[in-house]
Amino acid sequence: MKISPELSQYVEHVTESLNSIEWCAQPKGLYEPCRYLLDLGGKRIRPALLLMAADLHGAGIRRYMNQAVCVEVFHNFTLMHDDIMDEAPVRRGKPTVHKKWDVNTAILSGDVMFVKAYELLATGLNPEEIHSVLPIFSQTAKEVCEGQQMDMNFETRKNVSPQEYIKMITLKTAVLLGASLKIGAVLAGADEEQTRLLYNFGRDVGVAFQIKDDLLDAFGDSAKTGKQPGGDILADKKTLLMLLARERANNRQLEVLEKLKSTELSGEQKVAETLRVFEELDVRKTAEAEMNRYADRAKQSLAAVKPVNQNAKDVLEDLSAALLEREF
Amino acid sequence: MKISPELSQYVEHVTESLNSIEWCAQPKGLYEPCRYLLDLGGKRIRPALLLMAADLHGAGIRRYMNQAVCVEVFHNFTLMHDDIMDEAPVRRGKPTVHKKWDVNTAILSGDVMFVKAYELLATGLNPEEIHSVLPIFSQTAKEVCEGQQMDMNFETRKNVSPQEYIKMITLKTAVLLGASLKIGAVLAGADEEQTRLLYNFGRDVGVAFQIKDDLLDAFGDSAKTGKQPGGDILADKKTLLMLLARERANNRQLEVLEKLKSTELSGEQKVAETLRVFEELDVRKTAEAEMNRYADRAKQSLAAVKPVNQNAKDVLEDLSAALLEREF
Repeated sequence: MKISPELSQYVEHVTESLNSIEWCAQPKGLYEPCRYLLDLGGKRIRPALLLMAADLHGAGIRRYMNQAVCVEVFHNFTLMHDDIMDEAPVRRGKPTVHKKWDVNTAILSGDVMFVKAYELLATGLNPEEIHSVLPIFSQTAKEVCEGQQMDMNFETRKNVSPQEYIKMITLKTAVLLGASLKIGAVLAGADEEQTRLLYNFGRDVGVAFQIKDDLLDAFGDSAKTGKQPGGDILADKKTLLMLLARERANNRQLEVLEKLKSTELSGEQKVAETLRVFEELDVRKTAEAEMNRYADRAKQSLAAVKPVNQNAKDVLEDLSAALLEREF
Repeated sequence: MKISPELSQYVEHVTESLNSIEWCAQPKGLYEPCRYLLDLGGKRIRPALLLMAADLHGAGIRRYMNQAVCVEVFHNFTLMHDDIMDEAPVRRGKPTVHKKWDVNTAILSGDVMFVKAYELLATGLNPEEIHSVLPIFSQTAKEVCEGQQMDMNFETRKNVSPQEYIKMITLKTAVLLGASLKIGAVLAGADEEQTRLLYNFGRDVGVAFQIKDDLLDAFGDSAKTGKQPGGDILADKKTLLMLLARERANNRQLEVLEKLKSTELSGEQKVAETLRVFEELDVRKTAEAEMNRYADRAKQSLAAVKPVNQNAKDVLEDLSAALLEREF
């Protein structure tokens, strides 16, 4: 993803503030994992979005830094718990918290990160401001839990529809992008319509981004993505492509897909055979159309945003383009 | 524990409100465990304390019901996660959530209960009220996590001092009793001094209650407690009695205590031998003195509370007596 110098400005401010979070020194076993996970890095998209939305409505870049840090800390809390549930051994090239320490540590340090997120949300705000953003944050946190639950349910379910998949990624990932923008906008005093536009923009970009993720995994240029091609296929993930394929497949094709799950073929062959079925069923085009539908809606919402500060809107447009047009 | 009719009034109101919490219907796997755990029952002490503190300062019984339900939902969230960490198979005679469902379910349903607690905290309050209680709640939530972390650390540590143990139970259990009263008092408009007295009362009652728990386990009348005598000894728990004993023991006595941990003696003999060492070292008296110190401090704080509504204070005194003088 290309990061413009204007965008890096926001990200740098966020990184600085993340580094200066004061975690208590004691008990060490509780707070060290919080620091560790945050220090693994990340694109810091969510806090940057919050700051941009506020800046765009005239609040300046740094005024709502605590709230920006809040959404990043919350995001990392969900990563810490999700990694346990997904039994993920590695995040950003390093051991996950439950691997480096243990499951109990990851549960409890995650819990305390969640408290910290709520604490940061309220820091520096007046009562009216807290009252206006607290329900947005709690509602979003619930939805993220619901999305993760749907994702876990999918693992054992036979027939997941593409529509359900879109709902799952909306809840698990996209609503937090929307909410980050919404919180920034509300705090900066944007009106309801403007706030709604930014929320919808963030949510729809989020959905398009996730679909792009699925597409890049199957059809991306591995020289650019730096990832093994077909990683999702090898892991038997229920991506949008796979769900579209299963929905369209005739009995013979369904059987082929089923057999490929427990195949003794090499990884490369499994990926190639699966991609052949995808091609037969023309699912790539449908997934791309779905992605474009969300991307177009996002762009329309953003186009209707009336900024107080045009510079901030330009940066948000750059970020939008970077998220949607990435090839890696 | 004896529950007076006046006290039951508060508890009934709470139970009614707990039953009427609206958990979303979907995804079922996320919200059913929340309902299940709450339906296992409990004494509902924390929400009753919150209501009493508010009532005592003139707010009436039902005005801050959402906040009362909040502290009970929060408490149950901690139980759900603690039960995973402690690998507890049973709670209140029924399978724990991670046993009835699985660990992932208990993690995620716990998380969503925690969000629900924050949501309830803010429900029906005006911005000023939210602003005044949110930091109390977040601070307490952090302390409860810290207490749980200390408790887990104790399991693998050799030398835990009685002082550290008191700090652990203060954080893990007692501060939430104090905070429940504090939130009720603050909302009802009590002044700082009155709020502090109620907080200290709750916290000190909490510590005394936990020490009583240790004493009853070792020396209680099992006909009254209904529990196997010496359950903590059999489970090699680091109770206050054990920590006092280890602190005082000479080398020979330490060796006896160490040997009793990996003993091949029958359960009954193990308990009897351990109690003999406790007697030699006279730890019962010290633990009782420590308990009484906290109980006395609690009573002094409560005595200094100036109620708007004397009836509510009478009930709080009854509850205090019931908590401190229980024999089971």
